[in-house]
Amino acid sequence: MTRPLIALVTDFGLQDHYVGVMKGVMLGVCPDAQLVDISHGIPPQDIVGAALELEAAYRYFPPGTVFLVVVDPGVGSARRALAIDTGAYRFVGPDNGVLALVATATSGRRVVELINPQYARPTISLTFEGRDRFAPAAAWLASGVDVSAFGPEVSAIVALAWPVAREVSGCLEGTVVWVDRFGTLVTNIDRALIEALPAPADVFADLCHVGALVTTYADAPPGGVCALLGSANRLEIAVRGGSAASTLGLGTGAPVRVRPRA
Amino acid sequence: MTRPLIALVTDFGLQDHYVGVMKGVMLGVCPDAQLVDISHGIPPQDIVGAALELEAAYRYFPPGTVFLVVVDPGVGSARRALAIDTGAYRFVGPDNGVLALVATATSGRRVVELINPQYARPTISLTFEGRDRFAPAAAWLASGVDVSAFGPEVSAIVALAWPVAREVSGCLEGTVVWVDRFGTLVTNIDRALIEALPAPADVFADLCHVGALVTTYADAPPGGVCALLGSANRLEIAVRGGSAASTLGLGTGAPVRVRPRA
Amino acid sequence: MTRPLIALVTDFGLQDHYVGVMKGVMLGVCPDAQLVDISHGIPPQDIVGAALELEAAYRYFPPGTVFLVVVDPGVGSARRALAIDTGAYRFVGPDNGVLALVATATSGRRVVELINPQYARPTISLTFEGRDRFAPAAAWLASGVDVSAFGPEVSAIVALAWPVAREVSGCLEGTVVWVDRFGTLVTNIDRALIEALPAPADVFADLCHVGALVTTYADAPPGGVCALLGSANRLEIAVRGGSAASTLGLGTGAPVRVRPRA
Repeated sequence: MTRPLIALVTDFGLQDHYVGVMKGVMLGVCPDAQLVDISHGIPPQDIVGAALELEAAYRYFPPGTVFLVVVDPGVGSARRALAIDTGAYRFVGPDNGVLALVATATSGRRVVELINPQYARPTISLTFEGRDRFAPAAAWLASGVDVSAFGPEVSAIVALAWPVAREVSGCLEGTVVWVDRFGTLVTNIDRALIEALPAPADVFADLCHVGALVTTYADAPPGGVCALLGSANRLEIAVRGGSAASTLGLGTGAPVRVRPRA
Repeated sequence: MTRPLIALVTDFGLQDHYVGVMKGVMLGVCPDAQLVDISHGIPPQDIVGAALELEAAYRYFPPGTVFLVVVDPGVGSARRALAIDTGAYRFVGPDNGVLALVATATSGRRVVELINPQYARPTISLTFEGRDRFAPAAAWLASGVDVSAFGPEVSAIVALAWPVAREVSGCLEGTVVWVDRFGTLVTNIDRALIEALPAPADVFADLCHVGALVTTYADAPPGGVCALLGSANRLEIAVRGGSAASTLGLGTGAPVRVRPRA
Repeated sequence: MTRPLIALVTDFGLQDHYVGVMKGVMLGVCPDAQLVDISHGIPPQDIVGAALELEAAYRYFPPGTVFLVVVDPGVGSARRALAIDTGAYRFVGPDNGVLALVATATSGRRVVELINPQYARPTISLTFEGRDRFAPAAAWLASGVDVSAFGPEVSAIVALAWPVAREVSGCLEGTVVWVDRFGTLVTNIDRALIEALPAPADVFADLCHVGALVTTYADAPPGGVCALLGSANRLEIAVRGGSAASTLGLGTGAPVRVRPRA
């Protein structure tokens, strides 16, 4: 039998015991679980970043995977804790928008509020619900408990508060929403928007004219800035063998524009 | 059958091959082991930090878990290498205080010195006993070898050299002993000390008057400094949605005082 | 039955979803795989660093381990993708020198180019072949597919472009090739070169006279600089309880010399 798979996204970092403790709790509930880290390096309280990394990752995991997502600035407050079953995947996390991109993308989903104390630790810390509420819920889901057992159904979840790319008089206006380890600037402009535009088009990152889209880094000269559709199907600004963030002095929030040539 | 669980705490970081190599060695001895990282981001040679993170974490792991703890400034010297069985848990690490908090907390413990070469690698590097002595010992313990097989019993272990919080004329005098990823200042003042004090009490972090304890971050205004009992039952100074370390300019070693209101 | 083991070396870091996604892909192909991280903290595009960390690590893993190595500045270009079977171990990665140290060290190896689309994802991103080509290949190898199934044999692989230590008029001339988490300077001078030299010999790191070799850090006074043969059998310059990189202001590329006393 295949081992149940739980994948994690948090802003806990790896210096403290927080992630390890959640894993200890989960293995107490579901000893056969296979645990995979997607990222614990989400910037503190960056709900948008976590939502994007989760969206870029989840579809590459086998069906049945449970995703435990804890980026939770409202820990201990009245915000709801959720479990979502989309048929193919299950997600556990706070109702603050962090699950909105993956739950929107799927029909036939069931969403419940995590309130059944049977599937939480006996005492729930008001500063670490990841350990006491979310981790046990993820592990119980992974061990076969149906999502309906965790609490009452929820009809609507909180949307993600993030900048959405839009078309303005034939151009695309977007924003840098993530900077990756290589200094590549990832935008909120996706493949569908780009492909709907007449080609070729020029890409501008803030005041810098990046030029037309290329297909891979090797199409740029060493050290050269280029724009391309990245592996997560988003428009990216990169520097071959270098960092676009450093070279251009840009980061999250920088404006990006795509303008078709006349 | 449940897979044996080994949890790791080191100051090795994740950039070098050190942690991966210890895992390779352990899986050679105990192929079914489940390996969980608690932290490899302990500051280099920070025995106190490792002891605290281990103490905050271990009780959330299933009984039978083996903890491999390698923060070892005395590697290659005459300091002893230990295996400890507390009945519920087993610990492997150097005898430098790093295991003192978890071994003190438990009665009926058995402590041995790791000297049986049968459970070490054939050649023991004088600069990386983690790979050659501690990792194999942890894996052999996980695979069912009794602690008594590793070497002679040890009657007393080295205590942890760290600042202990104390009561001085009705106030608690403590110290920041850890700064977490969110910039939260974790102190050596624990829940029992706080609860023995008349409430309400004012918390001071160095020269800053933090005010009375709250129950969770959301009780503070955004950006506001607050004091609370954290998830590891220690007094913490936090900033809601921010970093107390940055806001207050404080770190490990900063004095913290709790004074009951008259 | 023992679970198949896959060990990873990349320059992807741990902040982004890249490593997690490769693991999701691998577990879709080989659900029983045990996944171990050697390092994802190789500096971006540092082929030499990755080759050295892999070489320091691989022999400590059980026979049969598959190593997935993705440091790939030429992603999307015409550089080849390889699978190598050395009998004891298997390696997957780009043909850019990153596998040269481990494949050189072994006779009877078989090397193939990864071109069979059956063992790749249906669409191969030109910016993330780790996800779409290398990870599935590693997982298929781990699940028992023979290396010959992946593509045609390759007779020669790209060598590692790195500084090789050499003897010049009775002295060894080398270079710092890696700086570890503790600030220890690791050189390209290995044990065999050192042992072929008359002892005692003086070590110089750039302009600093470090002195003769010691056997472990504890042989140096606290804060003292020392030279020793490290756990990976390379000459290292360390500071006891501190960082040689900070103390000496040196890093990768710094010259190191070993001169026998007259």
